[in-house]
Amino acid sequence: MIQVRVANLAMDPNTDSPVVLLEGINAKGVLPIWIGPPEAKAIMMSLAGQTFERPLTHDLLRLIIEGLEAQVRKIIIAQLRGNTFYAKIHLSRGDEVVVVDARPSDSIALALRAQAPIFVDRELFEKNSRQIDTSPPPEPPDDEDDDDVSDDALRKLLDEVDPPDDRKL
Amino acid sequence: MIQVRVANLAMDPNTDSPVVLLEGINAKGVLPIWIGPPEAKAIMMSLAGQTFERPLTHDLLRLIIEGLEAQVRKIIIAQLRGNTFYAKIHLSRGDEVVVVDARPSDSIALALRAQAPIFVDRELFEKNSRQIDTSPPPEPPDDEDDDDVSDDALRKLLDEVDPPDDRKL
Repeated sequence: MIQVRVANLAMDPNTDSPVVLLEGINAKGVLPIWIGPPEAKAIMMSLAGQTFERPLTHDLLRLIIEGLEAQVRKIIIAQLRGNTFYAKIHLSRGDEVVVVDARPSDSIALALRAQAPIFVDRELFEKNSRQIDTSPPPEPPDDEDDDDVSDDALRKLLDEVDPPDDRKL
Repeated sequence: MIQVRVANLAMDPNTDSPVVLLEGINAKGVLPIWIGPPEAKAIMMSLAGQTFERPLTHDLLRLIIEGLEAQVRKIIIAQLRGNTFYAKIHLSRGDEVVVVDARPSDSIALALRAQAPIFVDRELFEKNSRQIDTSPPPEPPDDEDDDDVSDDALRKLLDEVDPPDDRKL
């Protein structure tokens, strides 16, 4: 397993779809996963530390897990079948472990709220990750570039891969 | 408490926002609640009986609740403060009852998946419900009208009320 962190969210200019970029913590490479707009928003809000009076859907998920005295232990992006990623959410309550299948996007949105670690299957990460600089550019090159990740680097990354797709239902 | 069922989903032509229409089961009247597009989609999919290989967010919510050996007993649309509705999800596990605050839209999407009854506070229902025919028209009046609820009836209903708003964050 490779532990990752959410390096960034970006828009794929080719498909006009959000992409979440998972960066290896002790491994080189970034795994891009194409996700739906509502889940991208849920991840973005968590990264931005935004909270609201009424819980949004993934906040509700966390509240219900906590209300039932369970904890999110970790999430694992476990499999890629065709172009679709599959993830597993590991919950614990006392000594009991409960594993639930989920989309990577929901799993990541939940992990961020529960401060749970995110892992990717090692082989899956090595086959599908790319080298990309996700750090913000030292100077914004121009006014149009308001993404944290360089547009050129992102376009290059996204051109290289067949979109493994979390948007499929 | 008034028990309701989801009579329909519609688009408010004035605000271009989805509205869920909750119809009293043993009480006359329909309570409209303005909701966000992702939650409207989640409700619509449940009404249409659509299922998918990977769980969508509200399916995941149900799977996690079941995985933790709990059940959704009921949901209650309990309060309207300003223009914002507040709901409560009642879960049970064994003899224990756990109540979690939620948005009406998430609560309804979950109730439909868990086949749990939906209630509205009686005073809230009586103050905010309207008389509207939610049954499909006997003949589609023309090709443009593909909603189950009559556009005219809906427009009249929506013109009558200040939108109590579930979209606010």
